Amino acid sequence: MMDTILQHKSIRKFKDKPVEENVLEQILIAGTRASTTGNMQVYSMIVSTDECLKNKLWEAHFKQDMVKQAPVLITFCADFNRFTKWCKINNAQAGYDNFLSFYTASIDALLAAQNVALAAEAHGLGICYLGTTTYNAEEIIDILRLPELVVPVTTLAIGYPDEDPPLTDRLPLDAVVHYEVYTDYSPQKIKKLYREKEENPVYKKFVEENGKENLAQVFAEVRYKKEDNEFFSEKFLRTIKEQKFMK
Amino acid sequence: MMDTILQHKSIRKFKDKPVEENVLEQILIAGTRASTTGNMQVYSMIVSTDECLKNKLWEAHFKQDMVKQAPVLITFCADFNRFTKWCKINNAQAGYDNFLSFYTASIDALLAAQNVALAAEAHGLGICYLGTTTYNAEEIIDILRLPELVVPVTTLAIGYPDEDPPLTDRLPLDAVVHYEVYTDYSPQKIKKLYREKEENPVYKKFVEENGKENLAQVFAEVRYKKEDNEFFSEKFLRTIKEQKFMK
Repeated sequence: MMDTILQHKSIRKFKDKPVEENVLEQILIAGTRASTTGNMQVYSMIVSTDECLKNKLWEAHFKQDMVKQAPVLITFCADFNRFTKWCKINNAQAGYDNFLSFYTASIDALLAAQNVALAAEAHGLGICYLGTTTYNAEEIIDILRLPELVVPVTTLAIGYPDEDPPLTDRLPLDAVVHYEVYTDYSPQKIKKLYREKEENPVYKKFVEENGKENLAQVFAEVRYKKEDNEFFSEKFLRTIKEQKFMK
Repeated sequence: MMDTILQHKSIRKFKDKPVEENVLEQILIAGTRASTTGNMQVYSMIVSTDECLKNKLWEAHFKQDMVKQAPVLITFCADFNRFTKWCKINNAQAGYDNFLSFYTASIDALLAAQNVALAAEAHGLGICYLGTTTYNAEEIIDILRLPELVVPVTTLAIGYPDEDPPLTDRLPLDAVVHYEVYTDYSPQKIKKLYREKEENPVYKKFVEENGKENLAQVFAEVRYKKEDNEFFSEKFLRTIKEQKFMK
């Protein structure tokens, strides 16, 4: 268990080998064993393997190579459609067309996703999360024909690994852990916590290639920049509203 | 690995026994190995063990017994404060005060939480997620002194189990899995998928005790009802805005 967790690496190159049906079933079952709010299971997992469909999803995920290459894509959705339909046929007054319910369903979907990711890795598969899901949720809704009260929140690309990258660096543990209450960061503390990362040759190369002064600028002004964040923020909020989660 | 995942049960009664420091450290490290957007690690884990503090958190979590009883509470937060401070001291233009960034940071926090939950269980500990975190995020922010760009999104109550409940029922796998695209549910399909749950004696007792006609009404009109959802939805959105994530 701990080995699987500690050895996790995102895989972005996959072998041309399908995932066996029984393996796929096992990892989906693993997803369903994650905690879920009030045992309502307000999420769905959409398994796409069809080439034509994967091509469309590849476009929605900004044409990242691994999306096309992965034999399986699983799109995890916040889903209050099924539950609301159950309420309706039982003459129960469903009130899940609001932001809290969207967020609750998102938590369900994300905990299930992480179980699926770990179960896949325990079966020798490689995975990569696609953060682009929230950027282009609108397009993914069209492609996967998601009804109201269903919003895609993350996607896993899954397949047998065709690369063995090193473990990704992380900040020191005390960068992300606080004891008792939150201790805010002084500039000195920030410098100390990010020093090792900034001195990592891989990142130094990033800085050079992007013609920036430092690593923070590469993140904030090239990779995850303000104007993109704000554009996709508006778009994602609009999608949540269109899916009827913003009463 | 698969055993830990498949044997998960939420634990709501804990022994009066602290969690050893080295075990706690191992499960926190497990949290940091989860995938994180662009390796930005935009989350924080706040470990609270102090009795006085736990009492305050217990009140924020609607005075659920297990919250007081658990030796450790870990509050998982979407956190762009640390990253933004890093950008600022590096003269990089940070643009993370928007909803997309809040949601991205939420994903980071929730994947880390599920790693911590599984690692805790692999060490013989029991866990329970506290969904009340989003209901009373405002109060938790005060208690844990969270700065702007930090919002609590879930909490784990952790300790050595003092109960051994049966595995929780789940809907059949095909209730939550779709192949290729989403297949919407007919009333007949809904009835079939929920039949086993509705016939479960535990739930039949729920229906009787609550004086309702059926299980869906217990969920929609007693446990997770419209007026509560809408009240806490407004409140959570206001909190996200106050923490400066709704530019």
